[in-house]
Amino acid sequence: MTYCIAISTNNGLVFCSDSRTNAGPDMLSSYSKMHLFQPATDRVFCILSAGNLATTQAIIERIRQDIDEGSPRSLLTCQKINEGAHYVAEVSREEQNLAQQATGGSGIDTSASILFGGQIQGGKHRIYLVYSAGNFISDSDETPFLQIGESKYGKPILDRILHRETSLDDAARCAIVSMDSTIRSNATVGPPIEVLVYEADSFNTAHYVRLDAEDTYLRDIKRSWDETLKAGFLALPLFEWEKRSQIGATTTGAQPPQTESLPAEPLQQQPVAPGVPGNDQ
Amino acid sequence: MTYCIAISTNNGLVFCSDSRTNAGPDMLSSYSKMHLFQPATDRVFCILSAGNLATTQAIIERIRQDIDEGSPRSLLTCQKINEGAHYVAEVSREEQNLAQQATGGSGIDTSASILFGGQIQGGKHRIYLVYSAGNFISDSDETPFLQIGESKYGKPILDRILHRETSLDDAARCAIVSMDSTIRSNATVGPPIEVLVYEADSFNTAHYVRLDAEDTYLRDIKRSWDETLKAGFLALPLFEWEKRSQIGATTTGAQPPQTESLPAEPLQQQPVAPGVPGNDQ
Repeated sequence: MTYCIAISTNNGLVFCSDSRTNAGPDMLSSYSKMHLFQPATDRVFCILSAGNLATTQAIIERIRQDIDEGSPRSLLTCQKINEGAHYVAEVSREEQNLAQQATGGSGIDTSASILFGGQIQGGKHRIYLVYSAGNFISDSDETPFLQIGESKYGKPILDRILHRETSLDDAARCAIVSMDSTIRSNATVGPPIEVLVYEADSFNTAHYVRLDAEDTYLRDIKRSWDETLKAGFLALPLFEWEKRSQIGATTTGAQPPQTESLPAEPLQQQPVAPGVPGNDQ
Repeated sequence: MTYCIAISTNNGLVFCSDSRTNAGPDMLSSYSKMHLFQPATDRVFCILSAGNLATTQAIIERIRQDIDEGSPRSLLTCQKINEGAHYVAEVSREEQNLAQQATGGSGIDTSASILFGGQIQGGKHRIYLVYSAGNFISDSDETPFLQIGESKYGKPILDRILHRETSLDDAARCAIVSMDSTIRSNATVGPPIEVLVYEADSFNTAHYVRLDAEDTYLRDIKRSWDETLKAGFLALPLFEWEKRSQIGATTTGAQPPQTESLPAEPLQQQPVAPGVPGNDQ
C-alpha cells in the first residue's frame, strides 16, 4: 500500500509520501515514492506514485528517458503544467498497458496512480491526480489537496486544517500528522516519510526532509500533537449530566438526573422505495 | 453506509451510532441503529447494527420477540454476556440466511454486522463485534473499542485517545469527534448521532443523548475541537529551515539555507522476490 498527499496553497506546494512497499504482509521493503524533475531552471515537477512498483518504476524511468534523450514530448518540452499532466497521464496509460500485456492472465494488478505537480515559469503552480485509468483531476479552492493510496485515515485532519491561506510549513506539518495517523492504522504504510515544500515562483526544492521512524523532528511532532489532542479533550464541553452532577456534588450531592430515554422506535419512519428490498445502512 | 462505535473502559461502556440509511445516493433516510434491551433489572444490553436494513430490522425484531414470547433462548435467559453474544450471532446468521433465500439471485447484499455489548449482574461489562459471517470478537486492553461500517476516517482519533483508563464521558466525546470526522468525509454517514454511556454495575441507561445536525452541544464540541486542532498546529515544532530563517531574519536577514537534497535513487534497494512481478506500493 501507499499514502501520498499533494497540497496546493496560495504560497506554493507541499508533497508528502511514505516509503513502504509490500508484496504481501511478509514482503515489506522501502522505496522512495517521491520523484523530482528539474530538467531546466524555468521549471520544477514532483511526482508521487502509488500502485504496482514495477509499473511505477517503468513510468518514472520513461519520463526521465524522454528528458535525457531530448524526446519531442517530455517535461522539458511542455509549455504549460497542464500539458505536462497530459504527458504524464499518457505515459502512465502506455506503461500500464505494457505491464498488463507482460503479466497477462497472471491476475496481478499492474495499475498505478500518480500525484503530479509543479510550476513552469510564467504559469501558476498546480497539482494533479492522475487516475490509473489515465484521466486526471486538479485541486480546487474547496479541496486544496489530493491523495492517492490509503487516503481515508488521514483525510479528516486535512479536511479540518487545510485552506488556500494555510502557510506552506503548516500545510507540511498537517501532511506529516495525516501521514502519522495513517501509519498507525495501516501496517503497509510506513516511514521514512518524505516531505517537499515548494515555494511558488522560487524554482527551488531546498525545503525537503526525509523522516525515518526514529527521527527527532518526527518524534517531537508526534509528541506535541498527542499532547494537543489529549489537552483538547479536557477542554471539550461537558454533557448535561456532568454539569448537573458537578452542581449536585458541590451543593446537594445529588445523583446525575435521568436524561431523555432511548426511543424504542426508529427516529423517523420512512418507507423503503418499491423495488428496494432494504436500505444499505 | 453506517458508522458505529462501541468502547469498553474500566468504568463502563460507550455506544455511538449515526442514523443515515441509503439505497443509493438518491435514497437517503434516517433510522436509529441503536437498540436497547433491558429484559430484567439484572441485565442491560445495547446492539448497534450495520448492513442491509431489512436484515437488521429482522434481527432486532427476532431478538425482541424471543424475549417477549419467553423463548428458551433469549437475552432474558442467557446466564453470561458471552452466552448472549453467541445467541445474537446465531440470530444474525439465521436472519441473514432467510434474507438471502428471500432475495436469492437478485444480487442484493443482505449481509449485516453488529456491535453487541452490556452487562449481566455478577459478570463484567463487555462488548463484541459480530461479523456478517456470524463469528465474533471482543475488545482487548490494547484496543478498547470496536467499530462497524465506515470505520477508517474516525479510527485515528480513537487510536490516539482511548485507553481502559479513559473516563466514560471523555470516551463518549471521543466517539462523537470520531463520528463527526466520518460524517464530514462520507455523505452516507449522517446525524442524528446517538450516544449511550453505561456506567458499570449501574444497570442504568439514563446517560443517553441524540444529537441532530443543529444540536447546540454537537456544535459546541465541533467548534471547540476545531479550535484545539488549529491552535495545536501553531504549537507544533518548526522545520529546521524555519528556525534558521527566523534567526536569519533577526540577525543577518539571510535566506533559509539549502537542506539535504532529494535522493535520485530509491532510499533502499531491495530486490523483489522471485515470482513477484512487482511490489504493491
